[in-house]
Amino acid sequence: MTDYLVNGKAGGLISVQDRGFQYGDGLFETMLVENGNALFLSEHLDRLSYGCNVLAFPSIDRKLLEREVNEIVSNNQFGVLKIMLSRGESERGFLIPDKPKITRVVTFSSSLKSHMDVKLQHVNITLCKTRLSQQPLLAGIKHLNQLERVLARSEWKDTTVSEGLMLDNEGHVIEGTMSNVFVVKEGVIKTSDLNYAGVKGIMRDFILKRATEQGYDCQVTNLTLDDVLNADEVFITNSLILLKTVAKLTFLNRTATYVEGPVSPIMYGAIRDEILARHGERS
Amino acid sequence: MTDYLVNGKAGGLISVQDRGFQYGDGLFETMLVENGNALFLSEHLDRLSYGCNVLAFPSIDRKLLEREVNEIVSNNQFGVLKIMLSRGESERGFLIPDKPKITRVVTFSSSLKSHMDVKLQHVNITLCKTRLSQQPLLAGIKHLNQLERVLARSEWKDTTVSEGLMLDNEGHVIEGTMSNVFVVKEGVIKTSDLNYAGVKGIMRDFILKRATEQGYDCQVTNLTLDDVLNADEVFITNSLILLKTVAKLTFLNRTATYVEGPVSPIMYGAIRDEILARHGERS
Repeated sequence: MTDYLVNGKAGGLISVQDRGFQYGDGLFETMLVENGNALFLSEHLDRLSYGCNVLAFPSIDRKLLEREVNEIVSNNQFGVLKIMLSRGESERGFLIPDKPKITRVVTFSSSLKSHMDVKLQHVNITLCKTRLSQQPLLAGIKHLNQLERVLARSEWKDTTVSEGLMLDNEGHVIEGTMSNVFVVKEGVIKTSDLNYAGVKGIMRDFILKRATEQGYDCQVTNLTLDDVLNADEVFITNSLILLKTVAKLTFLNRTATYVEGPVSPIMYGAIRDEILARHGERS
Repeated sequence: MTDYLVNGKAGGLISVQDRGFQYGDGLFETMLVENGNALFLSEHLDRLSYGCNVLAFPSIDRKLLEREVNEIVSNNQFGVLKIMLSRGESERGFLIPDKPKITRVVTFSSSLKSHMDVKLQHVNITLCKTRLSQQPLLAGIKHLNQLERVLARSEWKDTTVSEGLMLDNEGHVIEGTMSNVFVVKEGVIKTSDLNYAGVKGIMRDFILKRATEQGYDCQVTNLTLDDVLNADEVFITNSLILLKTVAKLTFLNRTATYVEGPVSPIMYGAIRDEILARHGERS
Protein backbone atom coordinates (compact mmCIF):
# COMPACT_ATOMS: atom_id res chain seq x y z
CA MET A 1 0.00 0.00 0.00
CA THR A 2 1.28 3.43 -0.97
CA ASP A 3 0.41 6.82 0.51
CA TYR A 4 1.10 10.16 -1.11
CA LEU A 5 1.41 13.74 0.02
CA VAL A 6 1.55 16.31 -2.78
CA ASN A 7 2.39 19.76 -1.42
CA GLY A 8 1.25 18.55 1.96
CA LYS A 9 -2.12 17.24 0.81
CA ALA A 10 -3.13 13.60 0.54
CA GLY A 11 -3.46 12.50 -3.08
CA GLY A 12 -1.28 11.28 -5.85
CA LEU A 13 -1.86 13.64 -8.76
CA ILE A 14 0.15 16.44 -10.35
CA SER A 15 -0.45 18.73 -13.31
CA VAL A 16 0.75 17.65 -16.74
CA GLN A 17 2.23 21.17 -16.89
CA ASP A 18 4.56 20.27 -14.01
CA ARG A 19 8.17 20.72 -15.11
CA GLY A 20 8.99 17.40 -13.49
CA PHE A 21 6.79 15.71 -16.11
CA GLN A 22 7.60 18.11 -18.93
CA TYR A 23 11.39 18.10 -18.62
CA GLY A 24 12.43 15.93 -15.67
CA ASP A 25 13.20 19.24 -13.95
CA GLY A 26 13.49 17.93 -10.42
CA LEU A 27 15.17 15.75 -7.80
CA PHE A 28 14.39 12.73 -5.67
CA GLU A 29 15.53 10.75 -2.64
CA THR A 30 14.61 7.21 -1.67
CA MET A 31 15.24 5.65 1.73
CA LEU A 32 14.33 2.75 3.99
CA VAL A 33 11.90 3.14 6.84
CA GLU A 34 12.60 0.92 9.84
CA ASN A 35 10.25 0.86 12.76
CA GLY A 36 8.89 4.31 11.90
CA ASN A 37 12.32 5.84 11.31
CA ALA A 38 13.39 7.13 7.88
CA LEU A 39 17.01 5.95 7.80
CA PHE A 40 19.74 8.53 7.17
CA LEU A 41 17.03 11.16 6.57
CA SER A 42 19.38 13.95 7.51
CA GLU A 43 21.95 12.87 4.90
CA HIS A 44 19.23 12.48 2.27
CA LEU A 45 18.00 16.00 2.98
CA ASP A 46 21.62 17.21 2.70
CA ARG A 47 21.94 15.69 -0.77
CA LEU A 48 18.52 17.04 -1.78
CA SER A 49 19.64 20.45 -0.60
CA TYR A 50 22.83 20.17 -2.63
CA GLY A 51 20.78 19.17 -5.70
CA CYS A 52 18.54 22.20 -5.20
CA ASN A 53 21.64 24.34 -5.22
CA VAL A 54 22.92 22.75 -8.45
CA LEU A 55 19.57 23.21 -10.22
CA ALA A 56 18.98 26.69 -8.74
CA PHE A 57 15.87 25.59 -6.86
CA PRO A 58 14.93 27.60 -3.76
CA SER A 59 16.44 26.17 -0.54
CA ILE A 60 14.53 23.26 0.95
CA ASP A 61 12.49 23.68 4.11
CA ARG A 62 13.95 20.81 6.18
CA LYS A 63 11.49 21.21 9.04
CA LEU A 64 8.54 21.05 6.67
CA LEU A 65 9.88 17.93 4.93
CA GLU A 66 10.60 16.28 8.28
CA ARG A 67 7.04 17.07 9.41
CA GLU A 68 5.61 15.54 6.26
CA VAL A 69 7.77 12.44 6.65
CA ASN A 70 6.44 12.07 10.20
CA GLU A 71 2.92 12.60 8.95
CA ILE A 72 3.08 9.91 6.28
CA VAL A 73 5.10 7.34 8.26
CA SER A 74 3.45 5.98 11.39
CA ASN A 75 5.27 4.56 14.41
CA ASN A 76 6.42 0.97 13.98
CA GLN A 77 6.00 0.99 10.19
CA PHE A 78 8.48 -0.48 7.72
CA GLY A 79 8.87 0.29 4.04
CA VAL A 80 10.26 2.72 1.50
CA LEU A 81 9.99 6.50 1.61
CA LYS A 82 10.48 8.68 -1.44
CA ILE A 83 10.76 12.46 -1.58
CA MET A 84 10.49 14.26 -4.91
CA LEU A 85 10.86 17.95 -5.68
CA SER A 86 10.13 19.46 -9.08
CA ARG A 87 10.24 23.04 -10.33
CA GLY A 88 6.44 23.11 -10.46
CA GLU A 89 4.23 24.39 -13.24
CA SER A 90 5.31 26.99 -15.74
CA GLU A 91 4.51 28.43 -19.13
CA ARG A 92 5.63 26.41 -22.12
CA GLY A 93 9.40 26.53 -22.67
CA PHE A 94 12.59 25.75 -20.81
CA LEU A 95 12.91 29.22 -19.26
CA ILE A 96 12.76 28.98 -15.47
CA PRO A 97 10.03 31.17 -13.95
CA ASP A 98 11.23 34.01 -11.72
CA LYS A 99 9.47 32.55 -8.69
CA PRO A 100 9.00 28.85 -9.26
CA LYS A 101 6.42 27.17 -7.05
CA ILE A 102 8.15 23.91 -6.17
CA THR A 103 6.08 20.71 -6.28
CA ARG A 104 6.78 18.57 -3.21
CA VAL A 105 5.86 14.89 -3.24
CA VAL A 106 6.33 12.53 -0.30
CA THR A 107 5.48 8.87 -0.93
CA PHE A 108 5.49 5.96 1.50
CA SER A 109 5.12 2.31 0.48
CA SER A 110 4.72 0.19 3.57
CA SER A 111 5.88 -3.38 3.87
CA LEU A 112 5.52 -5.97 6.57
CA LYS A 113 9.19 -6.82 6.81
CA SER A 114 12.12 -5.19 8.50
CA HIS A 115 15.25 -4.91 6.39
CA MET A 116 17.33 -5.40 9.53
CA ASP A 117 16.45 -9.09 9.53
CA VAL A 118 18.08 -9.49 6.10
CA LYS A 119 21.40 -11.32 6.19
CA LEU A 120 24.19 -10.07 3.93
CA GLN A 121 23.24 -11.28 0.45
CA HIS A 122 25.51 -12.55 -2.30
CA VAL A 123 24.26 -11.51 -5.70
CA ASN A 124 25.05 -11.93 -9.37
CA ILE A 125 25.49 -8.89 -11.58
CA THR A 126 25.97 -8.18 -15.28
CA LEU A 127 27.56 -5.47 -17.42
CA CYS A 128 25.20 -3.14 -19.31
CA LYS A 129 25.78 -2.04 -22.88
CA THR A 130 24.04 1.27 -22.22
CA ARG A 131 26.66 3.84 -21.24
CA LEU A 132 26.22 6.79 -18.90
CA SER A 133 26.87 10.08 -20.66
CA GLN A 134 29.25 12.55 -19.07
CA GLN A 135 27.63 15.69 -17.70
CA PRO A 136 29.68 17.32 -14.93
CA LEU A 137 26.89 19.84 -14.23
CA LEU A 138 24.53 17.06 -13.13
CA ALA A 139 26.98 14.43 -11.85
CA GLY A 140 26.49 13.37 -8.24
CA ILE A 141 22.93 14.60 -7.77
CA LYS A 142 19.79 12.47 -7.94
CA HIS A 143 17.71 14.20 -10.60
CA LEU A 144 14.65 13.15 -12.60
CA ASN A 145 16.43 12.57 -15.95
CA GLN A 146 16.85 8.82 -15.68
CA LEU A 147 16.25 7.46 -19.18
CA GLU A 148 19.76 6.03 -19.46
CA ARG A 149 19.14 3.87 -16.39
CA VAL A 150 15.73 2.83 -17.69
CA LEU A 151 17.40 1.64 -20.90
CA ALA A 152 20.20 -0.07 -18.97
CA ARG A 153 17.78 -1.85 -16.62
CA SER A 154 15.84 -3.15 -19.62
CA GLU A 155 18.89 -5.09 -20.82
CA TRP A 156 18.31 -8.12 -18.60
CA LYS A 157 15.25 -10.05 -17.47
CA ASP A 158 17.01 -12.89 -15.65
CA THR A 159 15.68 -12.52 -12.11
CA THR A 160 18.82 -14.14 -10.68
CA VAL A 161 20.77 -11.05 -11.86
CA SER A 162 20.41 -8.28 -9.29
CA GLU A 163 22.21 -5.38 -10.87
CA GLY A 164 23.94 -4.13 -14.03
CA LEU A 165 27.20 -2.21 -14.02
CA MET A 166 27.36 0.88 -16.19
CA LEU A 167 30.39 2.39 -17.88
CA ASP A 168 30.63 5.98 -19.07
CA ASN A 169 31.49 7.02 -22.65
CA GLU A 170 35.19 6.68 -21.88
CA GLY A 171 34.83 3.16 -20.50
CA HIS A 172 35.20 3.97 -16.81
CA VAL A 173 33.07 1.88 -14.47
CA ILE A 174 30.73 4.41 -12.85
CA GLU A 175 28.13 2.45 -10.86
CA GLY A 176 25.19 0.07 -11.10
CA THR A 177 21.82 1.13 -12.52
CA MET A 178 20.64 1.76 -8.95
CA SER A 179 23.70 1.32 -6.72
CA ASN A 180 27.29 2.41 -6.24
CA VAL A 181 30.08 -0.09 -6.65
CA PHE A 182 33.14 -0.82 -4.50
CA VAL A 183 36.07 -3.12 -5.27
CA VAL A 184 38.60 -4.48 -2.79
CA LYS A 185 42.09 -5.48 -3.94
CA GLU A 186 44.80 -6.50 -1.50
CA GLY A 187 43.00 -4.70 1.32
CA VAL A 188 42.56 -1.41 -0.57
CA ILE A 189 38.95 -0.25 -1.05
CA LYS A 190 38.22 1.61 -4.28
CA THR A 191 35.09 3.24 -5.66
CA SER A 192 34.43 5.30 -8.76
CA ASP A 193 35.05 9.00 -9.13
CA LEU A 194 31.64 10.53 -9.88
CA ASN A 195 32.59 13.98 -11.10
CA TYR A 196 31.37 13.34 -14.66
CA ALA A 197 28.55 10.84 -14.17
CA GLY A 198 26.76 8.88 -11.47
CA VAL A 199 24.96 9.52 -8.21
CA LYS A 200 26.83 10.08 -4.96
CA GLY A 201 25.02 7.58 -2.76
CA ILE A 202 24.39 8.11 0.93
CA MET A 203 25.66 4.57 1.66
CA ARG A 204 28.72 5.24 -0.53
CA ASP A 205 29.55 8.30 1.56
CA PHE A 206 28.99 6.34 4.76
CA ILE A 207 31.26 3.47 3.67
CA LEU A 208 34.04 5.84 2.57
CA LYS A 209 33.91 7.62 5.93
CA ARG A 210 33.59 4.56 8.14
CA ALA A 211 36.16 2.44 6.28
CA THR A 212 38.67 5.28 6.47
CA GLU A 213 38.00 5.60 10.24
CA GLN A 214 38.62 1.87 10.56
CA GLY A 215 42.05 2.26 8.96
CA TYR A 216 41.32 1.05 5.42
CA ASP A 217 43.05 2.71 2.49
CA CYS A 218 40.02 4.10 0.59
CA GLN A 219 40.45 5.48 -2.91
CA VAL A 220 37.97 7.41 -5.06
CA THR A 221 39.36 6.92 -8.51
CA ASN A 222 38.75 6.19 -12.20
CA LEU A 223 37.67 2.58 -11.91
CA THR A 224 38.31 0.36 -14.93
CA LEU A 225 36.56 -2.83 -15.92
CA ASP A 226 39.89 -4.58 -15.27
CA ASP A 227 39.82 -3.25 -11.71
CA VAL A 228 36.44 -4.93 -11.28
CA LEU A 229 37.39 -8.17 -13.05
CA ASN A 230 40.63 -8.51 -11.07
CA ALA A 231 39.22 -7.50 -7.68
CA ASP A 232 39.34 -9.84 -4.69
CA GLU A 233 35.95 -8.63 -3.52
CA VAL A 234 33.19 -6.49 -5.01
CA PHE A 235 30.16 -5.03 -3.27
CA ILE A 236 27.32 -2.68 -4.21
CA THR A 237 25.49 -0.20 -2.00
CA ASN A 238 22.37 1.93 -1.96
CA SER A 239 19.90 3.22 0.59
CA LEU A 240 17.40 0.40 0.05
CA ILE A 241 19.61 -2.68 -0.22
CA LEU A 242 22.20 -1.10 2.10
CA LEU A 243 25.01 -3.40 0.94
CA LYS A 244 25.25 -6.63 -1.04
CA THR A 245 28.31 -8.70 -1.87
CA VAL A 246 28.84 -9.58 -5.52
CA ALA A 247 29.31 -13.32 -6.00
CA LYS A 248 29.63 -13.27 -9.76
CA LEU A 249 29.88 -10.78 -12.64
CA THR A 250 28.83 -12.20 -16.02
CA PHE A 251 28.82 -10.53 -19.42
CA LEU A 252 29.25 -11.82 -22.96
CA ASN A 253 31.20 -15.03 -22.39
CA ARG A 254 33.20 -13.76 -19.44
CA THR A 255 32.63 -14.54 -15.77
CA ALA A 256 34.42 -13.20 -12.73
CA THR A 257 33.77 -14.70 -9.31
CA TYR A 258 34.69 -13.14 -6.00
CA VAL A 259 35.40 -14.14 -2.42
CA GLU A 260 32.78 -13.37 0.18
CA GLY A 261 34.80 -11.14 2.44
CA PRO A 262 36.38 -9.98 4.55
CA VAL A 263 35.51 -6.34 3.88
CA SER A 264 31.85 -6.48 2.83
CA PRO A 265 30.52 -8.22 5.98
CA ILE A 266 32.44 -5.73 8.10
CA MET A 267 30.95 -2.80 6.17
CA TYR A 268 27.44 -4.28 6.19
CA GLY A 269 27.82 -4.67 9.95
CA ALA A 270 28.98 -1.07 10.24
CA ILE A 271 25.84 0.18 8.44
CA ARG A 272 23.58 -1.93 10.69
CA ASP A 273 25.43 -0.79 13.81
CA GLU A 274 24.98 2.82 12.74
CA ILE A 275 21.25 2.32 12.24
CA LEU A 276 20.91 0.66 15.66
CA ALA A 277 23.01 3.40 17.27
CA ARG A 278 20.77 6.08 15.81
CA HIS A 279 17.41 4.46 16.38
CA GLY A 280 17.99 2.08 19.25
CA GLU A 281 17.34 -1.64 19.49
CA ARG A 282 14.40 -3.03 17.59
CA SER A 283 11.23 -2.83 19.61
CA MET B 1 -6.16 29.32 -22.69
CA THR B 2 -4.96 25.74 -22.59
CA ASP B 3 -6.96 22.53 -23.06
CA TYR B 4 -5.80 19.06 -22.09
CA LEU B 5 -6.69 15.52 -23.02
CA VAL B 6 -5.12 12.84 -20.82
CA ASN B 7 -5.73 9.38 -22.26
CA GLY B 8 -8.61 10.85 -24.20
CA LYS B 9 -10.32 12.52 -21.25
CA ALA B 10 -10.48 16.24 -20.55
CA GLY B 11 -8.35 17.21 -17.58
CA GLY B 12 -4.77 18.07 -16.86
CA LEU B 13 -3.64 15.65 -14.15
CA ILE B 14 -1.42 12.57 -14.07
CA SER B 15 -0.30 10.24 -11.30
CA VAL B 16 2.94 11.03 -9.44
CA GLN B 17 3.73 7.35 -10.14
CA ASP B 18 3.80 8.09 -13.85
CA ARG B 19 7.21 7.18 -15.25
CA GLY B 20 7.21 10.45 -17.17
CA PHE B 21 7.37 12.26 -13.83
CA GLN B 22 9.50 9.67 -12.03
CA TYR B 23 12.21 9.23 -14.68
CA GLY B 24 11.39 11.39 -17.70
CA ASP B 25 10.52 8.09 -19.38
CA GLY B 26 8.67 9.53 -22.35
CA LEU B 27 8.56 11.58 -25.53
CA PHE B 28 6.98 14.74 -26.83
CA GLU B 29 6.18 16.71 -29.97
CA THR B 30 5.28 20.38 -30.30
CA MET B 31 3.80 21.97 -33.40
CA LEU B 32 2.03 25.06 -34.70
CA VAL B 33 -1.68 25.08 -35.36
CA GLU B 34 -2.78 27.34 -38.22
CA ASN B 35 -6.44 27.80 -39.02
CA GLY B 36 -7.32 24.49 -37.37
CA ASN B 37 -4.48 22.54 -38.98
CA ALA B 38 -1.65 20.98 -36.94
CA LEU B 39 1.31 21.72 -39.22
CA PHE B 40 3.51 18.82 -40.32
CA LEU B 41 1.47 16.51 -38.04
CA SER B 42 2.36 13.49 -40.13
CA GLU B 43 6.11 14.15 -39.78
CA HIS B 44 5.72 14.76 -36.02
CA LEU B 45 3.91 11.43 -35.68
CA ASP B 46 6.71 9.79 -37.69
CA ARG B 47 9.32 11.13 -35.25
CA LEU B 48 7.18 10.16 -32.26
CA SER B 49 6.89 6.68 -33.73
CA TYR B 50 10.66 6.50 -34.18
CA GLY B 51 11.14 7.61 -30.55
CA CYS B 52 8.73 4.87 -29.39
CA ASN B 53 10.88 2.38 -31.26
CA VAL B 54 14.07 3.68 -29.63
CA LEU B 55 12.57 3.55 -26.11
CA ALA B 56 10.79 0.23 -26.75
CA PHE B 57 7.33 1.77 -26.29
CA PRO B 58 4.42 0.03 -28.03
CA SER B 59 3.70 1.39 -31.52
CA ILE B 60 1.65 4.57 -31.59
CA ASP B 61 -1.95 4.53 -32.75
CA ARG B 62 -1.78 7.28 -35.37
CA LYS B 63 -5.53 7.29 -36.05
CA LEU B 64 -6.27 7.70 -32.34
CA LEU B 65 -3.79 10.57 -31.98
CA GLU B 66 -5.16 12.28 -35.10
CA ARG B 67 -8.69 11.95 -33.71
CA GLU B 68 -7.64 13.51 -30.41
CA VAL B 69 -5.85 16.34 -32.22
CA ASN B 70 -9.05 17.01 -34.17
CA GLU B 71 -11.04 16.86 -30.95
CA ILE B 72 -8.90 19.41 -29.09
CA VAL B 73 -8.30 21.79 -32.00
CA SER B 74 -11.37 23.45 -33.46
CA ASN B 75 -11.71 24.77 -37.00
CA ASN B 76 -10.12 28.17 -37.55
CA GLN B 77 -8.07 28.06 -34.35
CA PHE B 78 -4.43 29.13 -34.04
CA GLY B 79 -1.90 28.15 -31.40
CA VAL B 80 0.47 25.47 -30.21
CA LEU B 81 -0.25 21.75 -29.96
CA LYS B 82 1.79 19.41 -27.80
CA ILE B 83 1.64 15.63 -27.73
CA MET B 84 3.33 13.73 -24.89
CA LEU B 85 3.66 9.99 -24.37
CA SER B 86 5.06 8.44 -21.20
CA ARG B 87 5.51 4.82 -20.15
CA GLY B 88 2.68 5.20 -17.66
CA GLU B 89 2.57 4.07 -14.06
CA SER B 90 4.68 1.26 -12.70
CA GLU B 91 6.03 -0.25 -9.52
CA ARG B 92 9.02 1.50 -7.99
CA GLY B 93 12.24 0.94 -9.92
CA PHE B 94 13.60 1.41 -13.41
CA LEU B 95 12.44 -1.99 -14.66
CA ILE B 96 9.97 -1.60 -17.52
CA PRO B 97 6.66 -3.39 -16.88
CA ASP B 98 5.84 -6.24 -19.26
CA LYS B 99 2.75 -4.47 -20.55
CA PRO B 100 3.19 -0.75 -19.95
CA LYS B 101 0.03 1.30 -20.12
CA ILE B 102 1.19 4.38 -22.03
CA THR B 103 0.05 7.80 -20.78
CA ARG B 104 -1.09 9.97 -23.69
CA VAL B 105 -1.36 13.72 -23.24
CA VAL B 106 -2.57 16.13 -25.92
CA THR B 107 -2.40 19.82 -25.05
CA PHE B 108 -3.57 22.81 -27.07
CA SER B 109 -2.79 26.43 -26.20
CA SER B 110 -4.79 28.71 -28.45
CA SER B 111 -3.66 32.14 -29.55
CA LEU B 112 -5.35 34.86 -31.54
CA LYS B 113 -2.57 35.28 -34.05
CA SER B 114 -1.58 33.38 -37.14
CA HIS B 115 2.12 32.65 -37.46
CA MET B 116 1.81 32.99 -41.22
CA ASP B 117 1.56 36.77 -40.84
CA VAL B 118 5.01 36.84 -39.22
CA LYS B 119 7.75 38.26 -41.48
CA LEU B 120 11.17 36.59 -41.41
CA GLN B 121 12.77 37.75 -38.16
CA HIS B 122 16.40 38.64 -37.52
CA VAL B 123 17.45 37.62 -34.05
CA ASN B 124 20.43 37.78 -31.72
CA ILE B 125 21.78 34.61 -30.16
CA THR B 126 24.40 33.70 -27.57
CA LEU B 127 26.64 30.73 -26.80
CA CYS B 128 25.74 28.61 -23.74
CA LYS B 129 28.32 27.31 -21.29
CA THR B 130 26.16 24.25 -20.56
CA ARG B 131 27.25 21.44 -22.87
CA LEU B 132 25.09 18.67 -24.28
CA SER B 133 26.31 15.26 -23.18
CA GLN B 134 26.85 12.59 -25.81
CA GLN B 135 24.36 9.72 -25.73
CA PRO B 136 23.99 7.98 -29.10
CA LEU B 137 21.10 5.85 -27.78
CA LEU B 138 18.95 8.94 -27.23
CA ALA B 139 20.32 11.30 -29.90
CA GLY B 140 17.80 12.57 -32.43
CA ILE B 141 14.62 11.79 -30.50
CA LYS B 142 12.58 14.28 -28.48
CA HIS B 143 12.46 12.69 -25.02
CA LEU B 144 11.50 14.02 -21.59
CA ASN B 145 15.06 14.24 -20.14
CA GLN B 146 15.64 17.92 -20.78
CA LEU B 147 17.56 19.19 -17.75
CA GLU B 148 20.59 20.18 -19.82
CA ARG B 149 18.44 22.50 -21.90
CA VAL B 150 16.75 23.90 -18.77
CA LEU B 151 20.21 24.75 -17.39
CA ALA B 152 21.34 26.19 -20.73
CA ARG B 153 18.21 28.35 -21.09
CA SER B 154 18.77 29.73 -17.60
CA GLU B 155 22.11 31.25 -18.68
CA TRP B 156 20.62 34.41 -20.18
CA LYS B 157 17.78 36.73 -19.20
CA ASP B 158 18.32 39.41 -21.84
CA THR B 159 15.02 39.35 -23.74
CA THR B 160 16.74 40.65 -26.88
CA VAL B 161 18.60 37.31 -27.06
CA SER B 162 16.37 34.70 -28.71
CA GLU B 163 18.41 31.55 -28.50
CA GLY B 164 21.57 29.97 -27.07
CA LEU B 165 23.84 27.69 -29.08
CA MET B 166 24.96 24.52 -27.35
CA LEU B 167 28.18 22.58 -27.90
CA ASP B 168 28.69 18.95 -26.96
CA ASN B 169 31.47 17.68 -24.69
CA GLU B 170 33.86 17.60 -27.62
CA GLY B 171 33.15 21.19 -28.63
CA HIS B 172 31.00 20.50 -31.70
CA VAL B 173 28.13 22.90 -32.24
CA ILE B 174 25.01 20.75 -31.92
CA GLU B 175 22.00 23.09 -31.90
CA GLY B 176 20.19 25.79 -29.97
CA THR B 177 18.37 25.08 -26.70
CA MET B 178 15.14 24.75 -28.70
CA SER B 179 16.14 24.91 -32.37
CA ASN B 180 18.44 23.42 -34.96
CA VAL B 181 21.14 25.57 -36.52
CA PHE B 182 22.23 26.01 -40.14
CA VAL B 183 25.22 27.92 -41.48
CA VAL B 184 25.78 29.06 -45.05
CA LYS B 185 29.29 29.60 -46.42
CA GLU B 186 29.94 30.37 -50.05
CA GLY B 187 26.59 28.92 -51.02
CA VAL B 188 27.04 25.63 -49.14
CA ILE B 189 24.43 24.90 -46.43
CA LYS B 190 25.69 23.00 -43.39
CA THR B 191 23.97 21.70 -40.28
CA SER B 192 25.17 19.59 -37.36
CA ASP B 193 25.45 15.85 -37.34
CA LEU B 194 23.13 14.71 -34.52
CA ASN B 195 24.22 11.11 -34.04
CA TYR B 196 25.59 11.75 -30.53
CA ALA B 197 23.40 14.58 -29.22
CA GLY B 198 20.57 16.84 -30.28
CA VAL B 199 17.07 16.57 -31.66
CA LYS B 200 16.40 15.92 -35.33
CA GLY B 201 13.90 18.72 -36.00
CA ILE B 202 11.04 18.41 -38.45
CA MET B 203 11.97 21.79 -39.95
CA ARG B 204 15.63 20.68 -40.16
CA ASP B 205 14.58 17.63 -42.18
CA PHE B 206 12.37 19.77 -44.39
CA ILE B 207 15.13 22.32 -45.10
CA LEU B 208 17.67 19.59 -45.89
CA LYS B 209 15.25 17.98 -48.34
CA ARG B 210 13.98 21.14 -49.99
CA ALA B 211 17.36 22.86 -50.24
CA THR B 212 18.84 19.75 -51.88
CA GLU B 213 15.92 19.68 -54.34
CA GLN B 214 16.63 23.32 -55.14
CA GLY B 215 20.22 22.44 -56.05
CA TYR B 216 22.03 23.59 -52.91
CA ASP B 217 25.02 21.63 -51.64
CA CYS B 218 23.72 20.52 -48.19
CA GLN B 219 26.10 18.96 -45.69
CA VAL B 220 25.31 17.24 -42.38
CA THR B 221 28.62 17.44 -40.61
CA ASN B 222 30.54 18.07 -37.39
CA LEU B 223 29.95 21.79 -37.09
CA THR B 224 32.63 23.77 -35.26
CA LEU B 225 32.28 27.10 -33.52
CA ASP B 226 34.63 28.49 -36.20
CA ASP B 227 32.18 27.33 -38.86
CA VAL B 228 29.51 29.41 -37.14
CA LEU B 229 31.75 32.42 -36.50
CA ASN B 230 33.02 32.48 -40.08
CA ALA B 231 29.67 31.78 -41.77
CA ASP B 232 28.18 34.20 -44.25
CA GLU B 233 24.69 33.47 -42.99
CA VAL B 234 23.27 31.60 -40.00
CA PHE B 235 19.67 30.58 -39.38
CA ILE B 236 17.80 28.56 -36.78
CA THR B 237 14.71 26.41 -37.23
CA ASN B 238 12.05 24.68 -35.19
CA SER B 239 8.39 23.79 -35.55
CA LEU B 240 7.15 26.85 -33.68
CA ILE B 241 9.39 29.64 -34.99
CA LEU B 242 9.72 27.86 -38.36
CA LEU B 243 12.89 29.78 -39.34
CA LYS B 244 14.69 32.85 -38.08
CA THR B 245 17.81 34.51 -39.46
CA VAL B 246 20.61 35.16 -36.99
CA ALA B 247 21.71 38.78 -37.09
CA LYS B 248 24.32 38.54 -34.37
CA LEU B 249 26.03 35.92 -32.18
CA THR B 250 27.53 37.33 -28.96
CA PHE B 251 29.47 35.52 -26.25
CA LEU B 252 32.18 36.59 -23.84
CA ASN B 253 33.66 39.58 -25.64
CA ARG B 254 33.21 38.22 -29.14
CA THR B 255 30.58 39.20 -31.65
CA ALA B 256 29.86 37.80 -35.09
CA THR B 257 27.39 39.50 -37.38
CA TYR B 258 25.82 37.97 -40.47
CA VAL B 259 24.23 39.04 -43.71
CA GLU B 260 20.47 38.70 -44.04
CA GLY B 261 20.34 36.33 -46.98
CA PRO B 262 20.10 35.09 -49.58
CA VAL B 263 19.41 31.55 -48.33
CA SER B 264 17.28 32.08 -45.22
CA PRO B 265 14.50 34.12 -46.89
CA ILE B 266 14.35 31.49 -49.65
CA MET B 267 14.06 28.68 -47.09
CA TYR B 268 11.53 30.56 -44.95
CA GLY B 269 9.52 31.06 -48.13
CA ALA B 270 9.79 27.36 -48.93
CA ILE B 271 8.36 26.43 -45.52
CA ARG B 272 5.46 28.88 -45.93
CA ASP B 273 4.80 27.66 -49.47
CA GLU B 274 4.69 24.08 -48.20
CA ILE B 275 2.19 25.00 -45.48
CA LEU B 276 -0.02 26.83 -48.00
CA ALA B 277 0.26 23.93 -50.45
CA ARG B 278 -0.85 21.48 -47.78
CA HIS B 279 -3.61 23.50 -46.19
CA GLY B 280 -4.69 25.88 -48.93
CA GLU B 281 -4.93 29.64 -48.89
CA ARG B 282 -5.85 31.29 -45.61
CA SER B 283 -9.59 31.50 -45.17
